[in-house]
Amino acid sequence: MQPAPSPIAATVDFAAPGVGHGFLRLPHSRDDAAWGSIMTPITVVNNGEGPTALLTGANHGDEYEGPIALFDLAATVRAEDVTGRLIIVPAMNYPAFAAATRTSPIDRGNLNRSFPGRPDGTVTQKIADYFQRVLLPMADVVLDFHSGGKTLDFLPYCAAHILPDKRQQAAAFDLVRAFGAPWSVRMLEIDAVGMYDTAAEEMGKVFVTTELGGGGTASARTAGIAKRGLRNLLVAAGVMRGEVAAQPTRWLDMPDADCFTFAEDGGLIEFLADLGDAVEKGQPVARIFPVTRTGLAPVTVPAGRAGLMMARHFPGIVKPGDCVAVIGVEVDE
Amino acid sequence: MQPAPSPIAATVDFAAPGVGHGFLRLPHSRDDAAWGSIMTPITVVNNGEGPTALLTGANHGDEYEGPIALFDLAATVRAEDVTGRLIIVPAMNYPAFAAATRTSPIDRGNLNRSFPGRPDGTVTQKIADYFQRVLLPMADVVLDFHSGGKTLDFLPYCAAHILPDKRQQAAAFDLVRAFGAPWSVRMLEIDAVGMYDTAAEEMGKVFVTTELGGGGTASARTAGIAKRGLRNLLVAAGVMRGEVAAQPTRWLDMPDADCFTFAEDGGLIEFLADLGDAVEKGQPVARIFPVTRTGLAPVTVPAGRAGLMMARHFPGIVKPGDCVAVIGVEVDE
Amino acid sequence: MQPAPSPIAATVDFAAPGVGHGFLRLPHSRDDAAWGSIMTPITVVNNGEGPTALLTGANHGDEYEGPIALFDLAATVRAEDVTGRLIIVPAMNYPAFAAATRTSPIDRGNLNRSFPGRPDGTVTQKIADYFQRVLLPMADVVLDFHSGGKTLDFLPYCAAHILPDKRQQAAAFDLVRAFGAPWSVRMLEIDAVGMYDTAAEEMGKVFVTTELGGGGTASARTAGIAKRGLRNLLVAAGVMRGEVAAQPTRWLDMPDADCFTFAEDGGLIEFLADLGDAVEKGQPVARIFPVTRTGLAPVTVPAGRAGLMMARHFPGIVKPGDCVAVIGVEVDE
Amino acid sequence: MQPAPSPIAATVDFAAPGVGHGFLRLPHSRDDAAWGSIMTPITVVNNGEGPTALLTGANHGDEYEGPIALFDLAATVRAEDVTGRLIIVPAMNYPAFAAATRTSPIDRGNLNRSFPGRPDGTVTQKIADYFQRVLLPMADVVLDFHSGGKTLDFLPYCAAHILPDKRQQAAAFDLVRAFGAPWSVRMLEIDAVGMYDTAAEEMGKVFVTTELGGGGTASARTAGIAKRGLRNLLVAAGVMRGEVAAQPTRWLDMPDADCFTFAEDGGLIEFLADLGDAVEKGQPVARIFPVTRTGLAPVTVPAGRAGLMMARHFPGIVKPGDCVAVIGVEVDE
Amino acid sequence: MQPAPSPIAATVDFAAPGVGHGFLRLPHSRDDAAWGSIMTPITVVNNGEGPTALLTGANHGDEYEGPIALFDLAATVRAEDVTGRLIIVPAMNYPAFAAATRTSPIDRGNLNRSFPGRPDGTVTQKIADYFQRVLLPMADVVLDFHSGGKTLDFLPYCAAHILPDKRQQAAAFDLVRAFGAPWSVRMLEIDAVGMYDTAAEEMGKVFVTTELGGGGTASARTAGIAKRGLRNLLVAAGVMRGEVAAQPTRWLDMPDADCFTFAEDGGLIEFLADLGDAVEKGQPVARIFPVTRTGLAPVTVPAGRAGLMMARHFPGIVKPGDCVAVIGVEVDE
Amino acid sequence: MQPAPSPIAATVDFAAPGVGHGFLRLPHSRDDAAWGSIMTPITVVNNGEGPTALLTGANHGDEYEGPIALFDLAATVRAEDVTGRLIIVPAMNYPAFAAATRTSPIDRGNLNRSFPGRPDGTVTQKIADYFQRVLLPMADVVLDFHSGGKTLDFLPYCAAHILPDKRQQAAAFDLVRAFGAPWSVRMLEIDAVGMYDTAAEEMGKVFVTTELGGGGTASARTAGIAKRGLRNLLVAAGVMRGEVAAQPTRWLDMPDADCFTFAEDGGLIEFLADLGDAVEKGQPVARIFPVTRTGLAPVTVPAGRAGLMMARHFPGIVKPGDCVAVIGVEVDE
Repeated sequence: MQPAPSPIAATVDFAAPGVGHGFLRLPHSRDDAAWGSIMTPITVVNNGEGPTALLTGANHGDEYEGPIALFDLAATVRAEDVTGRLIIVPAMNYPAFAAATRTSPIDRGNLNRSFPGRPDGTVTQKIADYFQRVLLPMADVVLDFHSGGKTLDFLPYCAAHILPDKRQQAAAFDLVRAFGAPWSVRMLEIDAVGMYDTAAEEMGKVFVTTELGGGGTASARTAGIAKRGLRNLLVAAGVMRGEVAAQPTRWLDMPDADCFTFAEDGGLIEFLADLGDAVEKGQPVARIFPVTRTGLAPVTVPAGRAGLMMARHFPGIVKPGDCVAVIGVEVDE
Repeated sequence: MQPAPSPIAATVDFAAPGVGHGFLRLPHSRDDAAWGSIMTPITVVNNGEGPTALLTGANHGDEYEGPIALFDLAATVRAEDVTGRLIIVPAMNYPAFAAATRTSPIDRGNLNRSFPGRPDGTVTQKIADYFQRVLLPMADVVLDFHSGGKTLDFLPYCAAHILPDKRQQAAAFDLVRAFGAPWSVRMLEIDAVGMYDTAAEEMGKVFVTTELGGGGTASARTAGIAKRGLRNLLVAAGVMRGEVAAQPTRWLDMPDADCFTFAEDGGLIEFLADLGDAVEKGQPVARIFPVTRTGLAPVTVPAGRAGLMMARHFPGIVKPGDCVAVIGVEVDE
Repeated sequence: MQPAPSPIAATVDFAAPGVGHGFLRLPHSRDDAAWGSIMTPITVVNNGEGPTALLTGANHGDEYEGPIALFDLAATVRAEDVTGRLIIVPAMNYPAFAAATRTSPIDRGNLNRSFPGRPDGTVTQKIADYFQRVLLPMADVVLDFHSGGKTLDFLPYCAAHILPDKRQQAAAFDLVRAFGAPWSVRMLEIDAVGMYDTAAEEMGKVFVTTELGGGGTASARTAGIAKRGLRNLLVAAGVMRGEVAAQPTRWLDMPDADCFTFAEDGGLIEFLADLGDAVEKGQPVARIFPVTRTGLAPVTVPAGRAGLMMARHFPGIVKPGDCVAVIGVEVDE
Repeated sequence: MQPAPSPIAATVDFAAPGVGHGFLRLPHSRDDAAWGSIMTPITVVNNGEGPTALLTGANHGDEYEGPIALFDLAATVRAEDVTGRLIIVPAMNYPAFAAATRTSPIDRGNLNRSFPGRPDGTVTQKIADYFQRVLLPMADVVLDFHSGGKTLDFLPYCAAHILPDKRQQAAAFDLVRAFGAPWSVRMLEIDAVGMYDTAAEEMGKVFVTTELGGGGTASARTAGIAKRGLRNLLVAAGVMRGEVAAQPTRWLDMPDADCFTFAEDGGLIEFLADLGDAVEKGQPVARIFPVTRTGLAPVTVPAGRAGLMMARHFPGIVKPGDCVAVIGVEVDE
Repeated sequence: MQPAPSPIAATVDFAAPGVGHGFLRLPHSRDDAAWGSIMTPITVVNNGEGPTALLTGANHGDEYEGPIALFDLAATVRAEDVTGRLIIVPAMNYPAFAAATRTSPIDRGNLNRSFPGRPDGTVTQKIADYFQRVLLPMADVVLDFHSGGKTLDFLPYCAAHILPDKRQQAAAFDLVRAFGAPWSVRMLEIDAVGMYDTAAEEMGKVFVTTELGGGGTASARTAGIAKRGLRNLLVAAGVMRGEVAAQPTRWLDMPDADCFTFAEDGGLIEFLADLGDAVEKGQPVARIFPVTRTGLAPVTVPAGRAGLMMARHFPGIVKPGDCVAVIGVEVDE
Repeated sequence: MQPAPSPIAATVDFAAPGVGHGFLRLPHSRDDAAWGSIMTPITVVNNGEGPTALLTGANHGDEYEGPIALFDLAATVRAEDVTGRLIIVPAMNYPAFAAATRTSPIDRGNLNRSFPGRPDGTVTQKIADYFQRVLLPMADVVLDFHSGGKTLDFLPYCAAHILPDKRQQAAAFDLVRAFGAPWSVRMLEIDAVGMYDTAAEEMGKVFVTTELGGGGTASARTAGIAKRGLRNLLVAAGVMRGEVAAQPTRWLDMPDADCFTFAEDGGLIEFLADLGDAVEKGQPVARIFPVTRTGLAPVTVPAGRAGLMMARHFPGIVKPGDCVAVIGVEVDE
């Protein structure tokens, strides 16, 4: 059976020259608005010939470097700076972004596990479906900004995936290098089911992503990395005029599952190493204190391998099953 | 009328020699426990003659450096290290700490605005009353750990108040200096009504406090500052044996209300300066993007005075009325 | 695979002569009732030969004219007034009706977008499935009462759809005319997927619906329209004895998508025209004031076409994406 | 003991000439903003000599005619139109207005039962205290807009109270007459404890109020009554230049407690009379259907006295104890 | 200052002969009913000369034996059976009873800790005030039914307090004996502040109470004890005609605080003794399993004294601070 | 399409000799833990040759006899007592167990209606899928403990199903007999869709279940039945060394749908018979009092057949559609 058309309608013209601001309007009948809609802001810029870049933030709603760089770009871009087309969606999972939560407050959907989506599914699935069937097919280059959100913190990095198609892979890593984050990562996705990344890559798009900090905040430093990297990437991709402002970067690999350490106990977490610190295999990276009594010894959490601490649990309280730390391995590019 | 006795009963003996672990038990009849209680962990250490130090964390429930230092101290302290008495309450507003929220989930009480409390009031007022009438009178020295919590971030500092009694003030600043945080602050409290600080100081106690980070997390670095500062302060106060491990510190003043900048608009906040950065009066410290549309210019938030950014709003989204930044002035000690 | 039988069991006998009151019992295991059920009231009246009319209200749970007319009919109807069969379900989405919400509090299901339903799906899908496979097949004529609910307000009208089968369409409009609401509407449904209307019409049933007011209330006037119209329709359909009490009506068309105006901004809404007012294309029908500051100019919302304002947003606050107004075109019958 | 000063600070200058827009900033420390504030928009207009009018809406947060008229006035008023001073607070209980609820979402406070308030009380009490001790003393004339909110509907009227001081009373009724609502009411408040009305009148202010509709909406008609009446009243009070645009009005009395009819049963309510209809004593004004079964007779609700239905319950479902209707008596002025 | 009159109005006449059913109407303005009320059902029976008995259930809203006995009495009592006056309020904290919770869903008030109440306080305080100032003064004998509620379970007993006035005490124990529950208890209240018991006894009333089971249910057996005991007590008190149906009872004392055992640990609770079992001092009465891991030994909870287990924690999960068991001592009467 | 592998990973080795404690780790990305997991405790015991018994509790999260027996077994079992393999999962629906609710707080899933589950479905479906595809295939014998939970109460019984395969059926009833609960039941499941029972039986496993009490509690007596029965069953199944401690049991049948009585009315329920009481067909087993007024007669609920009351509604308040009582028929074994 032919899938139904997407219920989402754009109020911008994807083909019109110049800068257009508008919405992706998704009808959403609910108790507080029988004939309500979800209005996701979008900017489209067309100028001359050139590739199309699809730029997104807030795939998870509590990650802020991407939205800052993209709301800023949308507010300042001039058509004459562009050579091709920009499609800017600063807050991809808009209901989650508006609620400042990772997942959608409407259906608790994790947008980055909802692809390819469904036109007749939940709100999050409808958004995924629109990207899958309408926006991704228009794009040549896709940049999806992530950060750690409220519960994780990362060394700021730009990344792409190891892919079967080595030309596609090389094109992506060229853009990672141009982005110029302090760190760059080669990712081998273990469980790629339902990801936006996978959806884009399976269509042959050049896909680049980031993790630029976390904790549900953005600093001047991390926002600066996002803005500078965005402009560099667009220039390198041939969609914006200008020069790439080269930045030094260090490369990290995440070779296997030993990179990830999980807590088996809940409690108050004291880290013994910070982001960027080198650790040995088995070295304690954190201790977890039980909090219902005083006088009890904490449980120690050892590193699963030697390397650099590249991500960590953020909240002061940890729950059984939470990822405590990720240890990466620094490599030559 | 004579006030009623506190409903809180301690299961530890404040006079017994050695290390005792127990609870402050506060009966709390509620829907899910008709004869339930709130059990706040407490450790008391008595050894020989000497002053009494009352040590508290989680006055606000989402601040973690203090609880880490105090759960650690309670689990490792040996009676023979003490010369006098330690009263350790790692999580002063225990219901808030258990819920990982600033205020109590039971009555939304802000413990640090609830003094002197009431024995027949809300749960938070009953806790305040117990400190006011039972624990503070036992103490000579009081150390109350704070951090920024989930919504603020601070340069790590130890602080005391400008007081009418200059001997009391000097004793407090001696301990601030011994604590040895990277920053030390002289505070002139504008609105001190209901604070634990004020309750302690009005009884003539030597009162020291901290702000050691924020965002609802603790790093290895900030937890280390708390643990080292705690031990230094106890040694300097004559309650623990050992040597003060001297640390360099820089001093800040908060001269007047111009230090505080408030947002009049809500939206996505992009900081233009980070903690510790020097700013000029009127220099933009942040920009706030409206998020319901793309293409709109952000509102700029200027510094109210020249100085160093010593605290900032943490979440990526700001609401009208939120404090955006605090600018302090570095001074000689 | 053969679909499972419906889990719903009726406690009334659809074939028994006379007036029977009972329930549609739907087992619903939940935290507050391991072996609980949803009990939807139903009345069945059988007398002699004649068609079967299936009469429903509260398809959306916050619409009241239909339930008033149907609870009243069920309480007063005498078997001897009937010639055929009445199946009366005054509150079709009973959980929503009991909660006074548009959608089901159990699964947030919008019953009128849940057809054909599933016997093993959500509660709302199980209700849809029972109507789809049990009740609709019994019916010749279907009347489904709607009103605007808490968030919309309508000129009171009775309506039927433009259909491919012109005989079926004519039969429906005969009943619309007999109903005799102040307004009558010819509807061309754009997105009919999942609707009860579509389910009935695809089975060849004569289907009539209404919009009789809104705001989550019913006035004496609109309840009177529902009660009088119900009786007229049943007489005209040959299911009740009596005479049609002819009422004048005016006809409206909704020719295209320009009838619908959506808000792009949220705020305090001031209407500049009321239900029934004539407006010109482009004429402002409402203004939206931002509410976070005073002194700002409101945004104007223009009519998308000339015509009569036949529906409007109801709450005093409007959100981006809400339908502000519907403009219909008065036509000769 | 001297009461503490109000924690609220105004960002507008009440004495500055011209039109000033700003906020009443009330610090409000909470889980999602440790140093947050409630920002209530305010406009002050000063021009030459003349009385001060204090104008308020959204004393209850779900009443909209007042906010529409006052946001509109604040956005359009020119200093040269004023002779004296206007203090405009379109949303007096701003947290309730922002939540679209009658009472405050923070403390469930009903602002109009919270006077004289407390500077150290709940948020709602702090707002009341600021009006009591800061704003009311500045005023000569006070206009407080009300409507029925989401759960009541009223014939649109302007009103003042029967007062012991007949000069004060006459001044108020002069303004009621000038306002020119379709209906005007002489109110004898039975339980005036905690009301803003009482606070103003006890200070000798000329106090006028309204009920201009209800249901949690505003129509073009009722918003027009508010805007026209506001301008008329300000002209009549000598605070604005211009002419009173005279409007006919009819007068109602509410002589005693028999005016109010309460439901003893819950269920689906069918009104038998609408606003403005004349009823006899004992005449049924509504019927209440039980909704857990079909086939049961409704309970009848009789009028407690003869007169005009001037207010009614709004939602389609009524609960035991709800006021069903208010019957007023039309009188000569 | 003279306290304000109670806002509660009774719709029954306390002096009228015969059986009267009605309500205590407490106005309660709230978001879902601007002019709503709380309607507490009440029955008054007057016949001839004799004492007044005030009979109450659901002082805590999740206790059912009392409401069963009192709704039953109100529905079946004939005036001619009475010699004096009965005032029957089957659900004293009606909002809590309607929500099936111990405390009020409106203000979380524990009615039995809210005396003497306030006419201008919370809803629960207003109810307490009405009993304090209106109903208790009318009464000679007061019977207040309790059970364990959802979180406790009790051996079924009737009880009165050890009082300074030995005549008052004796009169109460005469009624306890007449009630004839399987167990009878002499209570020495340790913390009587705010209790209804204390309010009644301080006015010199003869006050009797019960604990008749628990778990938030009532069995045929415990409901039978309540109904039989109620009738016996009323006959013994001279308010109803008839004979006391004598029942055997056993007497328990609760000599001191060692009767109560509290949990210091949370987890899955396994009882090792049941209600009515004899235990020795130090004998384990329960074990608490941690539930986050398998393989850990449970914590043992010892009896604080020798005696009979007369009450226990009910839910399968226990929290730190919950009362696990109460051990009473059987005594001769 | 090949189904995806389960996302659940076990941290125990199912083949390792001896006693192993660990977790089933199910990744669960959510707002409070971006990289969080659900950690279900599990114990595996391997020793020598013999069958595998899969032992589960808390299939519904508010049933406690099973978890007590299984946490106890996991904490005390020695490898040398086992002849074969034990797989012990004391809390099968761990999120529900942790929340003390029947269904999962994450997705409201009823685990016992979620089989065969889905690896890419809801959390509850993922758990079902893991049992379906990983654990059940390893097992020879399956014991799934149930009790009534918070809303039902049962005579304590062990049970198995009437099955088409009479050898499989006989093996199950042998274990029921060995279990030795006070009651034993032969169940003919009417609606077996989605049940764990069905999943196990369709794979040819020997499946035994229980209902051992209810009300959301466990008594010493019912916990003792569970522990003794568990050991007996494991011995009889040849998985543990030892002797079956024979217990007398009485047998019940549930012949048809007349065993189940449902309420059509809500209110306060008074039972007229208790668990274990014999009733005649049509005999009132309960009465339901309306609670909005006093003075109304209760509705009577008759037994649908003669027999023994073997289960009943537990809470003091009943809702329309709740099962009030189950009447079983005692039979010879």
